[in-house]
Amino acid sequence: MAFVLDHRLEGSSFFIEDWDLCRVSLKNDKTWPWLYLVPRRDNIREIYDLTPADRALLMHEISRAAEALHAIYQPEKINTAALGNMVPQLHVHVFARFKHDPAWPKPVWAVQTNEISYTDSEKNAEILKLKKSFGEMRGS
Amino acid sequence: MAFVLDHRLEGSSFFIEDWDLCRVSLKNDKTWPWLYLVPRRDNIREIYDLTPADRALLMHEISRAAEALHAIYQPEKINTAALGNMVPQLHVHVFARFKHDPAWPKPVWAVQTNEISYTDSEKNAEILKLKKSFGEMRGS
Repeated sequence: MAFVLDHRLEGSSFFIEDWDLCRVSLKNDKTWPWLYLVPRRDNIREIYDLTPADRALLMHEISRAAEALHAIYQPEKINTAALGNMVPQLHVHVFARFKHDPAWPKPVWAVQTNEISYTDSEKNAEILKLKKSFGEMRGS
Repeated sequence: MAFVLDHRLEGSSFFIEDWDLCRVSLKNDKTWPWLYLVPRRDNIREIYDLTPADRALLMHEISRAAEALHAIYQPEKINTAALGNMVPQLHVHVFARFKHDPAWPKPVWAVQTNEISYTDSEKNAEILKLKKSFGEMRGS
């Protein structure tokens, strides 16, 4: 069966590229540089539902995403989370935190914020930067 | 240098056991069955600071912890997160979520709850169950 991204993830993000395991998207919220990594496999809810080979790929791709965010945005910290209480399709949040962000140092979920959409040109510029940085992280 | 667990992690949890990479502890909050996994390496803040071999171990140990929680508590969902905005020592939260828990289906950080300490006998019973289940997950 072809991979189908959950409509809530699809509707809240922009496609960047497909990696060996994951579809990589940019969450449409300028508050934080925020990536979704979604393994392109069917019926996976928990990390341990992945095969050991896919788990290794997931770890590699989480690191690649985090290193790219670090290289571009020089954040204070990368936050990584797989929650999935509302959207059952396994998805990993990898996003950048800053001392000046509206939730720092709390978890982003501890503070109510309004999502701030990217304009088309901002979104295109972010995606270009991310693709370039992902390319540079390919060999790590 | 010998591994030293951050005092905030140490003070809020009970030691269970050391795995190949991580120190595994039980968070002292009965609200959720909640494990800390802390790589026993010095000066690691981000997952990508680990060597590739240690990253693979971390993924294996996250899966082992999650499978044990699933086997014991039959939760609705496992949540996994590496945040580290307040405690810089890399630590991964692996914990069980239930439809009847006080934050469901929101992230636990979205809801203010008071931590409920284990009694000594409750703590010992939980640790026994967890050690037994970890042993059964060893081969996965």
